[in-house]
Amino acid sequence: MTVVVQLDEIREDPNPPTLDNLIDLTATDMGGVNDVITQQMQSPVILIPQVASHIVESGGKRLRPMLTLSAARMCGYAGSRHVGLAACVEFIHTATLLHDDVVDESALRRGTATANSVWDNKSSVLVGDFLFSRAFELMVADGSLQVLSILSQASSVIAEGEVHQLLTQNDTDTVEDEYLDVIRAKTAKLFAAATEIGAVVAERPEHERLALEAFGHNIGMAFQIVDDVLDYSARQATLGKTVGDDFREGKITLPVILSFLAADDDEKAFWRRTLEDLEQKKGDFKRAAQMLERSGALRTTVERARHYGALALEHLSGFEDGPEKASLAEAVEFAVNRVY
Amino acid sequence: MTVVVQLDEIREDPNPPTLDNLIDLTATDMGGVNDVITQQMQSPVILIPQVASHIVESGGKRLRPMLTLSAARMCGYAGSRHVGLAACVEFIHTATLLHDDVVDESALRRGTATANSVWDNKSSVLVGDFLFSRAFELMVADGSLQVLSILSQASSVIAEGEVHQLLTQNDTDTVEDEYLDVIRAKTAKLFAAATEIGAVVAERPEHERLALEAFGHNIGMAFQIVDDVLDYSARQATLGKTVGDDFREGKITLPVILSFLAADDDEKAFWRRTLEDLEQKKGDFKRAAQMLERSGALRTTVERARHYGALALEHLSGFEDGPEKASLAEAVEFAVNRVY
Repeated sequence: MTVVVQLDEIREDPNPPTLDNLIDLTATDMGGVNDVITQQMQSPVILIPQVASHIVESGGKRLRPMLTLSAARMCGYAGSRHVGLAACVEFIHTATLLHDDVVDESALRRGTATANSVWDNKSSVLVGDFLFSRAFELMVADGSLQVLSILSQASSVIAEGEVHQLLTQNDTDTVEDEYLDVIRAKTAKLFAAATEIGAVVAERPEHERLALEAFGHNIGMAFQIVDDVLDYSARQATLGKTVGDDFREGKITLPVILSFLAADDDEKAFWRRTLEDLEQKKGDFKRAAQMLERSGALRTTVERARHYGALALEHLSGFEDGPEKASLAEAVEFAVNRVY
Repeated sequence: MTVVVQLDEIREDPNPPTLDNLIDLTATDMGGVNDVITQQMQSPVILIPQVASHIVESGGKRLRPMLTLSAARMCGYAGSRHVGLAACVEFIHTATLLHDDVVDESALRRGTATANSVWDNKSSVLVGDFLFSRAFELMVADGSLQVLSILSQASSVIAEGEVHQLLTQNDTDTVEDEYLDVIRAKTAKLFAAATEIGAVVAERPEHERLALEAFGHNIGMAFQIVDDVLDYSARQATLGKTVGDDFREGKITLPVILSFLAADDDEKAFWRRTLEDLEQKKGDFKRAAQMLERSGALRTTVERARHYGALALEHLSGFEDGPEKASLAEAVEFAVNRVY
């Protein structure tokens, strides 16, 4: 099985891929997931549901829980445990976002004011802790030590990846391997856990569990790499989405690493000034985006994402064809070729 | 059984109580706890052990894990699971401290620069998340869903209490019941979990588990109430410890609540200016401490702590006498009459 990619230029696709089939297929179960989320973020301390609902309702795609649901169904699971566990995955993700926005000092997420800008950093840190703890309470209620092991390990790897990212920030000497280590930990690990859990609840044999873990890892890598491309994409700006966050914060992502490698002295000085010293002036972001485009760095980065997308699809090959498998393949196509 | 309290004036005790017996009794097991802690905070991402060891080695009393160890032994437990679980309790506490210091914008803890002042808020938030996740990994390795349930619930209640505290901060209308709700959640819950776990690993009957939970709850209440007294204690200053943190941050603790109730208009205006508006000038803290002393608020607050201490001791009465039970009673005496 190979990746179905018709377009060379991600930002010129007139019909960008969607998650329509995955969304349709998981609609009923996602209703359950959303109910669990709403119920579990309640507290007599009213600031908690206020902050939690702000981030929960801020228009995320909820890709991770949908992957858990569809993976479980593809594995023939007929029960309802996957609903609560998909909610756990989303809670861990949401807690991470609240803390990320504090760490990045972000004012906007998905075009909406972040919780830390509406309230303050304190509330975001503590409500993040609350959601994270609630995720573990939910897992304990589910009662599977295997699931608890997968998700507690994923959580510490995510934190490790976030700290690692802090260390590479503003460092233009960061190499591709280090970048891949960071995104493997901060992003791909939770995707891997999300899909692996599908096989666990369905009590499938070891090799299928590992195949779904590998599927999640690879779609997660593709997803994050494309995310890092989109942060420099002009098309994003026309869609009304935020661009340039990584640039403003001096995050060293794959497009920059590849561009820096091929850069002349002038260009290297530009990256050092803007990303290491964070001395940025009007027009710098536009110049950065143009440099990434002209050097071929964006195109090469998208190729890397396609490589991970192809690997993800390969790991689905052992599963029986059907709408769930097709929806997971659709998610890969989306991760690689999406424009949002 | 009643509380053994000889002194009316906590700050004038020439021989303040210690934890010597508890420390001696748990020394070998605490060696194991410290090994687990050192081992579990390792990571190839070097900033993690750096920040973690800074807070872990910053001179905490490690009262909570000692309580877990001694409670387990009092229950006749002869295995070694209590060591790893005591480390979990301390990890959750440590993660909370890292996040607390960010939330309170503290520069000093126990006379030492806080992690957020040595490094930054970002590192404290993320390393806190890492330690918290590691605590859950350790619990999963232990394999008891009952312990996981106790500690995951404790964690979300702690976060709830911390958010609740944010809401009462700078609000002089806060009443005693609300204060008690906050400290029950942010402090007493983890003490309760720490001692309850002792009965769980020893597989003691339900009523003993509940007695140890109640013991932990009450010693935790006493501990926090005295902590809030010590923040206004002149003796503390002579010992070289930090005083006045709560005052500077406008935290509404029991001494202030009691003093405010009995205050005249001038005094009420003083509390509103200093704690609500945070308009503080030289001499204000001294005046606050004197007002708390003269109004009898500090003395009444210590009486509240003694009440909880007495309740804690009552909950030990069903257990057999011996060195472990004596060490837990010693811890109550320490919580109530300590000067640090």
